[in-house]
Amino acid sequence: MSMTLALQRSMQATPDRIATVFHGRRQTFNEYGDRVARLAGALQSIGMRAGDRVGMLGVNSDRWLECLMGVWWGGGVLNPVNTRWSVPEIVYSLDDSDTTILVIDDHFLSRVEGIRAAARRVPIFVYAGDWPTPEGMLSFEELIAAAKPVEDANRAGADLACILYTGGTTGFPKGVMHSHWTLWSIGIQRLAQTPMPGESVALHVAPLFHMGGIGRALVQFIAGETHVLAPAFDAREVMAIVERERVTDLLLVPTMLQALITHPEFDCFDLSSLKRMVYGASPIAESVLERAMAALPGVAFTHSYGMTECGGVTSNPPENHGPEGRASGLSRSAGRAGYGIAVKLVDDSGNEVPRGEVGELIMRGPNVMLGYWNKPEETARALRDGWLYTGDGARMDEGGHVFIVDRLKDMIVSGGENVYSAEVENVIARHPAVQACAVIAVPHAQWGEAVHAVVVRKPGAQLDDAVLFEHCKGFIAGYKCPKSIEFREALPLTAAGKVLKRELRERHWAGQSRQVS
Amino acid sequence: MSMTLALQRSMQATPDRIATVFHGRRQTFNEYGDRVARLAGALQSIGMRAGDRVGMLGVNSDRWLECLMGVWWGGGVLNPVNTRWSVPEIVYSLDDSDTTILVIDDHFLSRVEGIRAAARRVPIFVYAGDWPTPEGMLSFEELIAAAKPVEDANRAGADLACILYTGGTTGFPKGVMHSHWTLWSIGIQRLAQTPMPGESVALHVAPLFHMGGIGRALVQFIAGETHVLAPAFDAREVMAIVERERVTDLLLVPTMLQALITHPEFDCFDLSSLKRMVYGASPIAESVLERAMAALPGVAFTHSYGMTECGGVTSNPPENHGPEGRASGLSRSAGRAGYGIAVKLVDDSGNEVPRGEVGELIMRGPNVMLGYWNKPEETARALRDGWLYTGDGARMDEGGHVFIVDRLKDMIVSGGENVYSAEVENVIARHPAVQACAVIAVPHAQWGEAVHAVVVRKPGAQLDDAVLFEHCKGFIAGYKCPKSIEFREALPLTAAGKVLKRELRERHWAGQSRQVS
Repeated sequence: MSMTLALQRSMQATPDRIATVFHGRRQTFNEYGDRVARLAGALQSIGMRAGDRVGMLGVNSDRWLECLMGVWWGGGVLNPVNTRWSVPEIVYSLDDSDTTILVIDDHFLSRVEGIRAAARRVPIFVYAGDWPTPEGMLSFEELIAAAKPVEDANRAGADLACILYTGGTTGFPKGVMHSHWTLWSIGIQRLAQTPMPGESVALHVAPLFHMGGIGRALVQFIAGETHVLAPAFDAREVMAIVERERVTDLLLVPTMLQALITHPEFDCFDLSSLKRMVYGASPIAESVLERAMAALPGVAFTHSYGMTECGGVTSNPPENHGPEGRASGLSRSAGRAGYGIAVKLVDDSGNEVPRGEVGELIMRGPNVMLGYWNKPEETARALRDGWLYTGDGARMDEGGHVFIVDRLKDMIVSGGENVYSAEVENVIARHPAVQACAVIAVPHAQWGEAVHAVVVRKPGAQLDDAVLFEHCKGFIAGYKCPKSIEFREALPLTAAGKVLKRELRERHWAGQSRQVS
Repeated sequence: MSMTLALQRSMQATPDRIATVFHGRRQTFNEYGDRVARLAGALQSIGMRAGDRVGMLGVNSDRWLECLMGVWWGGGVLNPVNTRWSVPEIVYSLDDSDTTILVIDDHFLSRVEGIRAAARRVPIFVYAGDWPTPEGMLSFEELIAAAKPVEDANRAGADLACILYTGGTTGFPKGVMHSHWTLWSIGIQRLAQTPMPGESVALHVAPLFHMGGIGRALVQFIAGETHVLAPAFDAREVMAIVERERVTDLLLVPTMLQALITHPEFDCFDLSSLKRMVYGASPIAESVLERAMAALPGVAFTHSYGMTECGGVTSNPPENHGPEGRASGLSRSAGRAGYGIAVKLVDDSGNEVPRGEVGELIMRGPNVMLGYWNKPEETARALRDGWLYTGDGARMDEGGHVFIVDRLKDMIVSGGENVYSAEVENVIARHPAVQACAVIAVPHAQWGEAVHAVVVRKPGAQLDDAVLFEHCKGFIAGYKCPKSIEFREALPLTAAGKVLKRELRERHWAGQSRQVS
């Protein structure tokens, strides 16, 4: 199994179907496939050998999807770089995965200098934009124009296909390794679970460097249908694209969905082409869901619960979103285990807990990652006896429906992005005026959760919010930096000296129905 | 990935849903899962270790499906024995695969003595029936009753899951090896391609020892829906079961479908529950298809083209079966490549032929077998550079639709069963009165094709049809024995001394639209 087989199938059966739409630019599968095969040849000509890592640092675009398939077609492994990251984070992922070529678009040219200065091994930069190519970089378009299309390298099965970096509990990002097999399973399973009868047009607005975005793109490739790309979320722009391109399928995080339906011009657009809406990454407020369903009456809503390590885990189908599902509470569930997936809720000793009680959600299935790149210890912690330990607390009803109730990992999910407290704490602790600190999630109306820091200054030291915030921004992405900072004389500690985070959280979460927003 | 995860999911989410129905006997997924876990323990207690082969020789039944999952749950590999085989053929498959345990039902007890006498290593016989257990055999029911349920062994991924024996070009059956991965891909792909929205009830009447039958059962397990089992095809009985169990899904070979719709009591049964009909294994006469679609107006028809080595290859969806599809000729197509599958038509040198021209159909995808058990040379012939060579000749239109036109392998498909000419020729040649022979396919109204032998007697030797037919029956299954025998003075030969089978066939196939029925 190689993910490129899906493209071969489209080139053969529906060469004239539209493959990608980006702003005014559209190309057929035949044209797309030709560019992919040339790009593969070009990447090989500048040194990509089988298994080599190639990074893509760019917003969602047709070129992003060309890079995805082009790297695979040429035998490489994709490292989809998180566009929200700071230079030190980007460099960490490039160094860690030994990424030798970095494709970069207009939005991130300002990062090049910093990467050059800090990277252990400076990658070859390939500029994928429409302006003259900056000095010291190769041109994506010129490479494609000059290259001959090559044969599909047909890397397959357990061969590594991509490394997706995600926050790390130890303060460093972890590279989640997926093979062609696991990606195939993620894609075909989602397609079987949410079939798209007839032709479909999917708008990718959730970032492709995340599992949510790339997983949805895989579904569309396997089905052989049209991809529309949006470089960033803007509610008005999304509605304009849906209307113009007759988009049938949308995947949004709850904050995006909310922005869409509450937009003052919501009624000005014809969204009648929409058939299916998948939401996920973070839980949705019931009021938002109800309002969305009322505003988009012809649309089937599905809640998808998953993570970078495995794509999908459970999904809550449209039938649980109806009046009955809302009355029974099933609309608040994350749904049942997906096809071919086993889910279990366990206590600290790994024993299954009785129905209705909270345990850590563990799962196994064909979609589980190979492990974390170069991190055998973290891999051993996450994968035990074939089970993936998700770090999420959940309870299950008699019908096997899962309700996520708590996060056991010390992690914050803000606007769909995972932030590990340890990573932020490490950065805060580097400031010379800080004696101790703890980072927790607090509820946030727009982002679900926000990063909150509780800080103890060194005796006699001066430090305020603004200074500490600037300090953080130098090391980590903006979404990981504390949105609010609180100074205290001391942190509440357990007898063993561990910070009592539960106590810190309590004040903020009083009156909320669950400790995960 | 282990195929048992699908069962775990059903036991968790829908324990009270009906898992199997066989005659009057029905059990829930909870009951079924309990019996599976006990059977697994029982098989381990009589010596089954991880990877050991266990044979199942029986008609379709609930116990057959218990054996399927029980062997996997306990860590074993299933050898689903072809029930139409003669004792020497059965023994060949048991010996070849080193099958140590053979589960056998009432219908095949007469074979036990012969197997005992001929097997290199006599297997442990487990009697899966409702009568007193014959001497020298263990009882399936007593084993289950006495055993404790064990934990799922969770064999997974590339671990061998089953060996399906199919006819061999060299005259010996070949054991097609499938892993949990390839079976998962076969099942989930079929489910994605032919979704079953809502609850479904599938009637398994095509034999489970064939890929068509076992593959359909995997779909049903992955979806977590109900299996109804019929021990043999009887048109009236199938209609009675559909009416009684409100069956929604049927998979039939064309001869079965024809028998159903032309049955004198067709109008006496309520078949309104039927939603989907998949037909395959051999081509269908247009008149039969049209009559079937007229007789079953609410049913979506799908043609599935596949083989033991890979499950599905292409499928022709319901939309091509409508008036437009019939007018354009698409209803006669085998459809396009399935999700994730690449199909290519090549000439003798492996180069792709232009659209519209006939070439050998080759394919690659996540569903392709690991290879043939213990047959590296046959494996190397079938799997080249990752492509499976099917031996079928086909042409392709501009839309990627495949039309099967010829069989390049010297094989006959009679009533959905593959018969390799070489195997039958070897048996005929053993008769002392035979000097030369050639076995070919001739058209047959009911079975599509029939086995026909052209025989040259030794000078002065006596031999007639009846004697030669009896001789064949001693070695091979009835369906492989010639249905007609023709004696000649000599066979037409090529310059190189090869039999010119095309010439032998011509007379029989004159006036037929294609050389494969």
